Amino acid sequence: MSDFFKGLSKVRYEGPNSDNPLAFHHYNPDEIVMGKRMEEHLRFAIAYWHSFAWEGGDPFGGRTFERPWFDGGMDAAKLKADVAFELFTLLGAPYFCFHDADVRPEGESFAESRKRLEALADIFENKIAETGVKLLWGTANLFSNRRFMGGAATNPDPDVFAYAAATIKANMDVTQRLGGENYVLWGGREGYETLLNTNLGQEMDQMARMLSMVVDYKHKIGFTGAILIEPKPQEPTKHQYDYDVSTVYGFLKKYGLEDEVKVNIEVGHAILAGHTFEHEVAMAAAHGIFGSIDMNRNDMQSGWDTDQFPNNVPEVALAYYHILKSGGFTTGGTNFDAKLRRQSIDPEDLLHGHIGGMDTCARGLKAAAAIIEDGTYDAFLTERYAGWNSAEAQAMLKGERSLSDIAARVEAEGINPQPKSGRQEYLENLINRFV
Amino acid sequence: MSDFFKGLSKVRYEGPNSDNPLAFHHYNPDEIVMGKRMEEHLRFAIAYWHSFAWEGGDPFGGRTFERPWFDGGMDAAKLKADVAFELFTLLGAPYFCFHDADVRPEGESFAESRKRLEALADIFENKIAETGVKLLWGTANLFSNRRFMGGAATNPDPDVFAYAAATIKANMDVTQRLGGENYVLWGGREGYETLLNTNLGQEMDQMARMLSMVVDYKHKIGFTGAILIEPKPQEPTKHQYDYDVSTVYGFLKKYGLEDEVKVNIEVGHAILAGHTFEHEVAMAAAHGIFGSIDMNRNDMQSGWDTDQFPNNVPEVALAYYHILKSGGFTTGGTNFDAKLRRQSIDPEDLLHGHIGGMDTCARGLKAAAAIIEDGTYDAFLTERYAGWNSAEAQAMLKGERSLSDIAARVEAEGINPQPKSGRQEYLENLINRFV
Amino acid sequence: MSDFFKGLSKVRYEGPNSDNPLAFHHYNPDEIVMGKRMEEHLRFAIAYWHSFAWEGGDPFGGRTFERPWFDGGMDAAKLKADVAFELFTLLGAPYFCFHDADVRPEGESFAESRKRLEALADIFENKIAETGVKLLWGTANLFSNRRFMGGAATNPDPDVFAYAAATIKANMDVTQRLGGENYVLWGGREGYETLLNTNLGQEMDQMARMLSMVVDYKHKIGFTGAILIEPKPQEPTKHQYDYDVSTVYGFLKKYGLEDEVKVNIEVGHAILAGHTFEHEVAMAAAHGIFGSIDMNRNDMQSGWDTDQFPNNVPEVALAYYHILKSGGFTTGGTNFDAKLRRQSIDPEDLLHGHIGGMDTCARGLKAAAAIIEDGTYDAFLTERYAGWNSAEAQAMLKGERSLSDIAARVEAEGINPQPKSGRQEYLENLINRFV
Amino acid sequence: MSDFFKGLSKVRYEGPNSDNPLAFHHYNPDEIVMGKRMEEHLRFAIAYWHSFAWEGGDPFGGRTFERPWFDGGMDAAKLKADVAFELFTLLGAPYFCFHDADVRPEGESFAESRKRLEALADIFENKIAETGVKLLWGTANLFSNRRFMGGAATNPDPDVFAYAAATIKANMDVTQRLGGENYVLWGGREGYETLLNTNLGQEMDQMARMLSMVVDYKHKIGFTGAILIEPKPQEPTKHQYDYDVSTVYGFLKKYGLEDEVKVNIEVGHAILAGHTFEHEVAMAAAHGIFGSIDMNRNDMQSGWDTDQFPNNVPEVALAYYHILKSGGFTTGGTNFDAKLRRQSIDPEDLLHGHIGGMDTCARGLKAAAAIIEDGTYDAFLTERYAGWNSAEAQAMLKGERSLSDIAARVEAEGINPQPKSGRQEYLENLINRFV
Repeated sequence: MSDFFKGLSKVRYEGPNSDNPLAFHHYNPDEIVMGKRMEEHLRFAIAYWHSFAWEGGDPFGGRTFERPWFDGGMDAAKLKADVAFELFTLLGAPYFCFHDADVRPEGESFAESRKRLEALADIFENKIAETGVKLLWGTANLFSNRRFMGGAATNPDPDVFAYAAATIKANMDVTQRLGGENYVLWGGREGYETLLNTNLGQEMDQMARMLSMVVDYKHKIGFTGAILIEPKPQEPTKHQYDYDVSTVYGFLKKYGLEDEVKVNIEVGHAILAGHTFEHEVAMAAAHGIFGSIDMNRNDMQSGWDTDQFPNNVPEVALAYYHILKSGGFTTGGTNFDAKLRRQSIDPEDLLHGHIGGMDTCARGLKAAAAIIEDGTYDAFLTERYAGWNSAEAQAMLKGERSLSDIAARVEAEGINPQPKSGRQEYLENLINRFV
Repeated sequence: MSDFFKGLSKVRYEGPNSDNPLAFHHYNPDEIVMGKRMEEHLRFAIAYWHSFAWEGGDPFGGRTFERPWFDGGMDAAKLKADVAFELFTLLGAPYFCFHDADVRPEGESFAESRKRLEALADIFENKIAETGVKLLWGTANLFSNRRFMGGAATNPDPDVFAYAAATIKANMDVTQRLGGENYVLWGGREGYETLLNTNLGQEMDQMARMLSMVVDYKHKIGFTGAILIEPKPQEPTKHQYDYDVSTVYGFLKKYGLEDEVKVNIEVGHAILAGHTFEHEVAMAAAHGIFGSIDMNRNDMQSGWDTDQFPNNVPEVALAYYHILKSGGFTTGGTNFDAKLRRQSIDPEDLLHGHIGGMDTCARGLKAAAAIIEDGTYDAFLTERYAGWNSAEAQAMLKGERSLSDIAARVEAEGINPQPKSGRQEYLENLINRFV
Repeated sequence: MSDFFKGLSKVRYEGPNSDNPLAFHHYNPDEIVMGKRMEEHLRFAIAYWHSFAWEGGDPFGGRTFERPWFDGGMDAAKLKADVAFELFTLLGAPYFCFHDADVRPEGESFAESRKRLEALADIFENKIAETGVKLLWGTANLFSNRRFMGGAATNPDPDVFAYAAATIKANMDVTQRLGGENYVLWGGREGYETLLNTNLGQEMDQMARMLSMVVDYKHKIGFTGAILIEPKPQEPTKHQYDYDVSTVYGFLKKYGLEDEVKVNIEVGHAILAGHTFEHEVAMAAAHGIFGSIDMNRNDMQSGWDTDQFPNNVPEVALAYYHILKSGGFTTGGTNFDAKLRRQSIDPEDLLHGHIGGMDTCARGLKAAAAIIEDGTYDAFLTERYAGWNSAEAQAMLKGERSLSDIAARVEAEGINPQPKSGRQEYLENLINRFV
Repeated sequence: MSDFFKGLSKVRYEGPNSDNPLAFHHYNPDEIVMGKRMEEHLRFAIAYWHSFAWEGGDPFGGRTFERPWFDGGMDAAKLKADVAFELFTLLGAPYFCFHDADVRPEGESFAESRKRLEALADIFENKIAETGVKLLWGTANLFSNRRFMGGAATNPDPDVFAYAAATIKANMDVTQRLGGENYVLWGGREGYETLLNTNLGQEMDQMARMLSMVVDYKHKIGFTGAILIEPKPQEPTKHQYDYDVSTVYGFLKKYGLEDEVKVNIEVGHAILAGHTFEHEVAMAAAHGIFGSIDMNRNDMQSGWDTDQFPNNVPEVALAYYHILKSGGFTTGGTNFDAKLRRQSIDPEDLLHGHIGGMDTCARGLKAAAAIIEDGTYDAFLTERYAGWNSAEAQAMLKGERSLSDIAARVEAEGINPQPKSGRQEYLENLINRFV
């Protein structure tokens, strides 16, 4: 055991009345919610990048965190892995997620970088066996290194495309070896900084080709997890091709990949795209491509992705409602793609952030389950569309009526529909009874 | 001739040095640009709604315009039509566009409303014959009347769906009779005010059914124009299903309508969705669904759709560049979906707004043509992607290589791509030489 | 009793477990919170305009509400007053607020409008006596009529300034007669639509002159209430001079009015200005100009003022925390400047909206009180700045040290300050224990 | 001469028809505009930080630029200074600006950092003498080092305040020695990340104390330049106390500093605060605190400060119009607080960026001068407010009338003002004739 978290012990559930800030107040892994343990519902994962690789910098200032593994080589990477699994264990988090660049120092060549990744995977294999912590998903960092500044799959230089392809292969191999339940692609540079230097159509074709190769490779190696795209509208680019769930759906349809790829939806990315998080979840469910979530929160007064830990229960409850209604997670889970504020420099802040996030999600899940179990809300929704159950309405909906047919009926019957209250305030109050 | 525009005469081209505010300074219909008359490139249309039906209200104040046709019945509608065609003629605009609700007072029943629309169509037929002004597109207003407050095609009440279907049929009939070159659908209420009372999947299925019926009816009646969807992310709703070009493309693909329906892209709607206008044009071209444009401008400091007349030439030039590169308009055109500021209450303000808009577009078009004719810019873009012409790059792009193949090559050849300057500032300067 | 609310009865407190949607679940007027009745803490007011004058229109659609008092003259105004006081009574709201234009039809002349206002005030006097409902504040509508389209106090036309001055006088007279506890000025048109036609300095001088006359008149007539400015950054104008609390403070200081005028802060206006609501409350308290609040909520995905009923308890709790810390309301209160969604067309929706709002505020108030009574949070804040209590720190803060003095000490003592954790996540979790 | 700009030569004015991308097309320093040389109007300065210290990183990627002076000590700092003055000379820029942290490596102690700054100042003194390039302003970087993460003047730790004070003194000393014409304070960390851990009132008092000491020190050392505050609403903090020009004005008034301190207004900061740049310039002029500008451009689709080089002439023209109307620059100037896009990695990109910016400003200045010399626009504005010249209007404006006086006159004279067109579209077209 390293001494990074010295003095801190495993976080326990103590209930809502405890005033121990280092205990769970709401997350109780074994509590049964709608017939399933809370842990199995939420499937929490800790993100390696924010908690162990991010240094606390922002556009106007550098590193604020002092971590003994910064600036080191492979030895430091091993220490980082030790501390990471200590955090997973302290929090009782069942899963973790990582990019290659989070866990190993970049090598001099592609081959060296790959070997280093594989060396870390050896370490992870042991730790997974020891701790029981599992890999929710792996992914490749195709955006931080300057070689990717103009895109990875969408780069004008085919050598960058090739380098990215090789990197993805290495990460898929490691993800499979570690029993990862998903493989994620976030295209942080798959977009443009200025349309002036960009051929949109060419770049989207390149991106689709890469994705097709990923799907082919998944089948080739027998990887049974899901392939997930993570939509984001912009930042770092001015425009990213995976703008939001609907855009990704259109992209998948265009290239015939809609049955092979799902989405990993991030709260802050939904907000940047002008949506609520629950909208994106519901839209993915409607399109049949819901996969997993990156849980965090944006500061609503800031115009960029702030990746804060979630703390607003009413908002989180609505998201879990839609997740539960879509059947809950299968391969997916709740990954905390959340980072400490850069002024939260102490090791214990890592606990505060995750404890708050896990408690907030637990409250949200319980509220969502209560809404469903109460049934009033779902009954309202069903009733609102009940008119569509009539024979004539079904005939219209199923394509058995033409515009002419309907127009004739409107005139013949003198149809003059009267508006009905949408009851928004009633529904908001109803939901508030459960949060 | 009514006396609404008394004292104002036909607007003529007087060149950039004229100080006559009621002359064109740049729009010269007969001037040849890239081998075609400017009028034929731009295909300007005047929107009936903003210039003749809108009363100058905003959320905090009522009507500011005093028009003699407000508050009247069919006689007032005839006066309005007279004045409208006088404006088209004063400006030399080759096209106009309208919704049913702009041109006829609502009747007591659907049948009465339809008959009134047809009566106005009789008037329009004569005016079109007299003036030579043509109909760029017709459309149905399915958002202003309270019956549509909860959606038209997407309403929970199938009677509203039926009423909307009958209304669309009536408008398509009139559009065809008047020789309209397109039929447009803007789903101002096809979305939701709160996800709480909404079944997303059901509503999108309803919307797709309506669109399929529209396409079927187009073929049935032999309408040869284009069917166009106009994307908008929100406003009046919190969320509109036709969010942006990419979302519409995904929707069309889902329901198999991508070869039947194109988009009418509005500047202000692009901005509300987080895009530039030129992005939306380029994206539509890339997806093969570019149709027409609604030209206007949003105030960049206001968070809603301000529908101002365009006046920033550099921005407009980039849009026309992409339009020209996609082959220019076929059935589409440049419709001024722009309204006077509510303090611009005089008849002559209608001239100022359109003159400024037409001059701005003319400058933009000429700048775009100059960029293309110069060739430096296009050559840069071609060169930037030239690496993809190699045999190996083409093999990757065409699917003849797997991740494994490429990874092996990366290691074998020690590929280590070096970044190349994206030259954004150079390109911005280059473009600025032409605007 | 009118039959508008037929079948609805007085809303009672039934506690959090009641499933009666027309009962209070949290607002219990007589419950003691920090030594005072909840009713006296919150001082709820109902806004006449949203609930009785607004017709449900939006920029793309007209009236959706059908109220028997719309389109009528003075008789309709009396019916409206009857229904309004019935709502106040059903809800047990202790206060109401109104603009002149909400309560009386506009007359043919200023004098007629004034007399109608006074006639309504006669009616209100009786109703106040009968019901015990009081007037929290009165105000003049200087933005809806087209005469004010270019500003009221800031109009280029001094006749409009004069008309506005006379209107304010009439409203102050009525407010005093009705025992109003404050008089509010919201400058909906005191700004500009385009800087191009605007002389900023001239207009701000005009606005300051009007405000000075208001203060003089207050003293002349012995009005003992507070004069309140309501900041808003924009909408309907592109820019409003009362942008936010800090801007208003600077304006008051410039013209020497900072001891005479306070602010009425609206949630949605704070959001539009890029702030949280609690920020604006805390800033007003720091400047000594906190007066009252307009409680509502903006849709965070919409770029305009949506004036929804509040329903997010954590957000509201932080605002009441700052209100309580600043000493609570004196003349001010919690005015629901909130309107039903335009699809909420039934009379009972007026109850749902206000019940939800009142319950949300009650939960927020109790949470805020619990935070204060617990004391952990306040102790943290005090401790964070404790270093400033040292003699040397106080000497710096009080101006007893110069840059040279301090620079010399920094070098002499080798001062090299180390950062301390800001503990944001800990604090967020701490606050969440109470909401 | 270093070899950084090898092969590049002094940029010359070649006129608008030149197709040499490394020539000025519009900036002609000696051209007379409104009786003064263009160079003396514009007073261009190059910012050391963006062009020489920034490494091309963004929140998702590290350094992209490869500069031989990165990662070095004092020798590298000297090379950096050589290259910087080479750029100033290549561009013919008359001024430069810098922070201490841009020019010298941080020392182990405050004293060492100060000495290194002074050593660089020795070098700068020589270079200024050799090249004739002057210092527009100096400033202290009180935001990048982790010691300032919780604020500089507003830090809860008085030792950080002291360290900041000592740093400012050192920078003011150097600025004076180098003949700097202004001293700027940008409070990048003078705000908060969360209101939860913040005492607003205490922090604003601290900030005011620091500013007062700066003013005292200026007088003590006889510095004759201006002290300038640079407003910004947020980023890096969630909220910065110097939000915008109006907020800064209120702050200065509160602490009695409004005659001692002016503002340096940045385009991108104006946009982030919800304003146009010309609004902020006009507001500063109206408050008598206009000082200088930081010229750049924000991407309108990105919610953060992008610091791009300006390239939209119409926007820039309106800003220079207001600058010229306020009397033009005195101590201030046009500082390019603009950075290359991170993909623009070549030395020549530094030329492209600045050439484009300088040409854009030159076009804007000439357009602004043309508007003024033409006179039509100014005459319109004067005429719009002409009603205020009447005796009665002046009596109202000067405080010689009370609300009662005016109300009596409104009724006696039956005043019923009619709205007049605001002519926005006419004015937009008028302005467009000059840009």
